[in-house]
Amino acid sequence: MRSPDDLYAVVPAGGSGTRLWPLSRAAHPKFFQPLTGTARSLLQATFDRLRPLVGPERICVVTGVDHAAGVARQLPELPEHNIMVEPAPRDSCAAIALAAAIIERRHPGALMASFAADHLIQDEEVFRRTVVEATAGASDGLLMTVGIMPTRPETGYGYVQCSEKVRPSTVQKVAKYREKPPLDVAKQFVESGKYLWNAGMFIWRTDVFLARLAEYRPDIAKLIQEIAAAWGTPQGAEVLGTLWPTVPRIAVEYAVMEPAAADGRVGTVPGDFGWSDIGDFETVATLLGSDESEATVVDLSGEPAEGPSVVGLDSDGLVVLPRRGRVVAALDVHDLIVVDTEDALLLCRRDRAQDIKKLIELLRERGAEAHV
Amino acid sequence: MRSPDDLYAVVPAGGSGTRLWPLSRAAHPKFFQPLTGTARSLLQATFDRLRPLVGPERICVVTGVDHAAGVARQLPELPEHNIMVEPAPRDSCAAIALAAAIIERRHPGALMASFAADHLIQDEEVFRRTVVEATAGASDGLLMTVGIMPTRPETGYGYVQCSEKVRPSTVQKVAKYREKPPLDVAKQFVESGKYLWNAGMFIWRTDVFLARLAEYRPDIAKLIQEIAAAWGTPQGAEVLGTLWPTVPRIAVEYAVMEPAAADGRVGTVPGDFGWSDIGDFETVATLLGSDESEATVVDLSGEPAEGPSVVGLDSDGLVVLPRRGRVVAALDVHDLIVVDTEDALLLCRRDRAQDIKKLIELLRERGAEAHV
Repeated sequence: MRSPDDLYAVVPAGGSGTRLWPLSRAAHPKFFQPLTGTARSLLQATFDRLRPLVGPERICVVTGVDHAAGVARQLPELPEHNIMVEPAPRDSCAAIALAAAIIERRHPGALMASFAADHLIQDEEVFRRTVVEATAGASDGLLMTVGIMPTRPETGYGYVQCSEKVRPSTVQKVAKYREKPPLDVAKQFVESGKYLWNAGMFIWRTDVFLARLAEYRPDIAKLIQEIAAAWGTPQGAEVLGTLWPTVPRIAVEYAVMEPAAADGRVGTVPGDFGWSDIGDFETVATLLGSDESEATVVDLSGEPAEGPSVVGLDSDGLVVLPRRGRVVAALDVHDLIVVDTEDALLLCRRDRAQDIKKLIELLRERGAEAHV
Repeated sequence: MRSPDDLYAVVPAGGSGTRLWPLSRAAHPKFFQPLTGTARSLLQATFDRLRPLVGPERICVVTGVDHAAGVARQLPELPEHNIMVEPAPRDSCAAIALAAAIIERRHPGALMASFAADHLIQDEEVFRRTVVEATAGASDGLLMTVGIMPTRPETGYGYVQCSEKVRPSTVQKVAKYREKPPLDVAKQFVESGKYLWNAGMFIWRTDVFLARLAEYRPDIAKLIQEIAAAWGTPQGAEVLGTLWPTVPRIAVEYAVMEPAAADGRVGTVPGDFGWSDIGDFETVATLLGSDESEATVVDLSGEPAEGPSVVGLDSDGLVVLPRRGRVVAALDVHDLIVVDTEDALLLCRRDRAQDIKKLIELLRERGAEAHV
């Protein structure tokens, strides 16, 4: 299946991945980290995955001022004018709308597909085939999403509720977006077979998305269109700097997708390609770790180690992210996550990994701001 | 009390302090570490403590080939010819006998006092006064030891059993050396008031010690005298290199002190000056740590920290030896020793600190030889 000639890929690169501290930091967020099983970062892996679909000229990354240089260096083949720098974070609706408006001016009626910078996908061929399937619905004027076929009753994700099929394609209408559910509801969702995980993957025609934005959030649409009109002109930076801070902060799901779904304008194709958002150390260990006798060791260096990185006596159930050249030696230690980075060491009981965010707050309170 | 004019101090600097790994290493043993509450190392603190007693010209350090350079650099005021380098470790009898024989040739009938390089003493004035008291017994021909007044029924030390007083001094005769006792025996020792800890502190006339050595271990005495006769001559290194490896390995307690005690030739003065051998991390924490809410933190850097070095959430009972510039963040972690060094991280349950030696053996087995 060939990808459509007018397809662009957009990658919003934001968020810090707090549950992966101290690996992921405000200054070195998750997407810059080599959490892929190779030396490539999640951002680079995202670029590598999209490149066969659209080519480097049609990949756009929307990122913050503090990460623009990192994006430029990690993706040397990405054209400079495809790095769109937000003066301040305004949530996903602003970032995606900006990209849509700029692409629409470059290529009216283009198809645009948007994917997070920090997700991991195991079967890239199936991923690309699924995106191309979704473009069928997008060409027909639907705001499309790729929903992930759920593999467990996860309470940490939102879901999309599917309704009737749109023949003759694999496209299904989306009846509703559903917030992160409690466990019993999540179980019902998975058993029904009618719910998919919302992984923030969108495919649409830029003209259609901008029309829907103008309809549901005319305030945002107006600001974004003014910014896009000035983009690349001598007044561009001035207009962006003045208007951007006034753009409302809202996620694209709330601003556009939910009302559009209620109006029967959202479609989905189910994705089954080994997706993960690499959201916490347990997931990192499961996907990228190698099991040794006392520990699951996640070596992100991409180089063969010279000696053991973990040695445990009367110890088990450890999850260790070691540093090159250092050894972690454990004596009678159990079920502990150990993350050893240059300037911070995390020790966390395995069943408390969801609370790392609270630990970061405490670090800030105690004056360890430089380490978070 | 003035110290005798003919007193020399000898410091055997050997042993690696395995229970303090990874702080203490084969290559960087305990005596080189700043385990003193200041930036000075234990060796430097030992030198500082002895200097007012005898002056730098009369302090001799006996050490191994791998630590000679470290001793020379840590003690720039120590005369070079007072650094006696053993070609290979032959235990304490050989080291002490070599120093005694060399001092005897430089200063016949000298008084010699020998102290470990890696012990901590809190009240140095009392320490020096006690040593001078002991020289009275040594001048009279006894092999003297300073025994430490026990503060607890410690099972990790040997004891000396005192008998009658030698009037009019504070000197008591030693009836017997006792091996590390089981707890019930240790309790009896402490309750009786007649036992002192053997801290390896000896004071004697060099001629007397060498005569006793010749009597109890003529084999060792003969080799040591040959080596000492050649010491400092053009043949010195050749003789040392040839004969030293043939010197029997034995502790001075077994070779000389025990048989001499049986012959009524050993005396002691009790020492009560805040002595510690800084033998494990619990002791290090008690003596050098500062208590923070979740952890006892031992900062050996000697510099004020810029931010917190330990931050714990739902954590307590931690003993942390942090590294400068790094933060240890703990989430739901309890009663754990955390020692963060440049190339190794130790995590050890507090009640297993005595088994670190086993962990080191495992590290060797697993090929982490470079880290031990």
